[in-house]
Amino acid sequence: MATIQDIADKMGISKGTVSKALNGASDISETLQKSVLETAVEMGYTKLRRQKGAAKKLCILTKNIEYEEPHQFGYEIILGFRQMAEPAGYMVEIVPVTDELQKSTPYDVFMLQNNYLGAFGLGFSLTDSWMKDFQTSRTPTVLYDNYIIANPNIAYVGIDNNEGMELAVSHLKQLGHQKIGYLSSSLESHIMQVRHKAFFRALKQNGLKSAPTYAGSSYYITQCMEKHLPRLLDMGMTAIICSYDLIANAAMIQCQQLGFHIPSDISIIGFDDLPICAYTSPPLTTIRQDRIQLGKSGYYALDSLMNKISIGTLLLHAQLILRNSTGPVSK
Amino acid sequence: MATIQDIADKMGISKGTVSKALNGASDISETLQKSVLETAVEMGYTKLRRQKGAAKKLCILTKNIEYEEPHQFGYEIILGFRQMAEPAGYMVEIVPVTDELQKSTPYDVFMLQNNYLGAFGLGFSLTDSWMKDFQTSRTPTVLYDNYIIANPNIAYVGIDNNEGMELAVSHLKQLGHQKIGYLSSSLESHIMQVRHKAFFRALKQNGLKSAPTYAGSSYYITQCMEKHLPRLLDMGMTAIICSYDLIANAAMIQCQQLGFHIPSDISIIGFDDLPICAYTSPPLTTIRQDRIQLGKSGYYALDSLMNKISIGTLLLHAQLILRNSTGPVSK
Repeated sequence: MATIQDIADKMGISKGTVSKALNGASDISETLQKSVLETAVEMGYTKLRRQKGAAKKLCILTKNIEYEEPHQFGYEIILGFRQMAEPAGYMVEIVPVTDELQKSTPYDVFMLQNNYLGAFGLGFSLTDSWMKDFQTSRTPTVLYDNYIIANPNIAYVGIDNNEGMELAVSHLKQLGHQKIGYLSSSLESHIMQVRHKAFFRALKQNGLKSAPTYAGSSYYITQCMEKHLPRLLDMGMTAIICSYDLIANAAMIQCQQLGFHIPSDISIIGFDDLPICAYTSPPLTTIRQDRIQLGKSGYYALDSLMNKISIGTLLLHAQLILRNSTGPVSK
Repeated sequence: MATIQDIADKMGISKGTVSKALNGASDISETLQKSVLETAVEMGYTKLRRQKGAAKKLCILTKNIEYEEPHQFGYEIILGFRQMAEPAGYMVEIVPVTDELQKSTPYDVFMLQNNYLGAFGLGFSLTDSWMKDFQTSRTPTVLYDNYIIANPNIAYVGIDNNEGMELAVSHLKQLGHQKIGYLSSSLESHIMQVRHKAFFRALKQNGLKSAPTYAGSSYYITQCMEKHLPRLLDMGMTAIICSYDLIANAAMIQCQQLGFHIPSDISIIGFDDLPICAYTSPPLTTIRQDRIQLGKSGYYALDSLMNKISIGTLLLHAQLILRNSTGPVSK
């Protein structure tokens, strides 16, 4: 790792100035501090020397994910993470990440600036600019549902979507379904791409016919309902798997408006098991992502990375939760 | 969970006899003890009440894997596991598993009989009869390089073979190679199937041509060298990836005997990074499985399962180790 002298030499400034900038002294301008930090990161700096007794800090980076209320998706993920991290002596800070922050500050610089030892990132999409920084980052970082190849400092945690789709498809097959369709939101996120592939893989493994037209995806749920759902119904699908619960709920409502009875005319399966699934009409059969366990395994993976055990992928078992939106195929 | 009374009722024997059998009392015949344990397992028993102060025991099950000497494949995996488990207060026993044991004793019965709280299984093949037991086992169990679907008590740990193949193929592509072949041992093990698929996936992702004839697999290395290696050379392959290091070493020797120079005529890549790879002629470029880290992550996964965090898959990042068996394609 570079020394303070190396950084000073490279920047043509004094050692004292570098040291002050790294320690965030108030008589150094923000611009100079940032440029020292950026140089330090370029030269391989990953940790500042912490003052004795200073808190060990981790952060949870949030983007496009709601987490403040118990019924929201991120709430229990964050809870599970804290349940492991805090007893282990870490302070955990939640940092909502804006596009501006990502554009103005390289990821490792941000982490160094704030003295975070590691991060758990929730909700990043493929278009976020830090996704590029993660490819070469030297900071231990765990991403929920995002995968970065060949960087030993970054791990991916999530549930096993292949297993989830296999459970959904084989459940429908056991009920006699042969024509199964799939509705998804836009394929611009890693996880929507994974589930889309997993759907076709599961059809194949179960010996069921498939064609690209068996799946439909749109950015907005309403578009998906108008454009793809009627098409799948016209094709004679007797069951539809949806890439997440809110699409499944919209599909159930739309089918019922079109005069289809669920599950006697058509079976619907969701994905995630949001708290609402028990209260939809009918209650929704779905694939559970256990969010407390996701949060805990996020901490497990981060702890491993910080101990130089370079986990790349950690997938939780998926679970099929049977409710009333699936039934035997109608004769 | 069933009570001792339930077991006694089901078997038509006294509660006292069941209790003695479960505690391994010496005045109970072995046959009766076994039949009590089998009934207990059937009825959902997973743990015996341990005497206060008794050691908490885990086991490492070994099958078809050498581990006694530092240069053998299993040695560091076991070491890494113990480095985590023993400081956490577990006694770790190594249990070589025979076919006879698997046939005579159901897996959960064996674990209960020996008071093991969990296991790390190394080297099982798809034909081992306990592989079937794992599908329904209630005992927390981590399998190295074997995957069991939809049982929340079983986890798979290994390295990310897709990432490894991607690193190997893109390294060769950067060196100008366009025709890359693959040699493998028999596809009767889970991991050989995974690597075989990963090879074709990596060719596709790198925009390289492929056909089923680009790969050859045989049970014995000598067969593989006689049957498939000359075929791949005749097809004009300029590089060959091998499913593990010993095949790669045999391929290098065979190529040299046929008058090919390595790497100027043909590049060879192995898989695993066994200690021998630094000493082959030439030293072998390969994909590393870090075995200490594999052992440690085996413990991580087992600890999670015992804490009801149901990890299904834990993959370590693969690493490409560059030595002298790969070079630019000859013009």
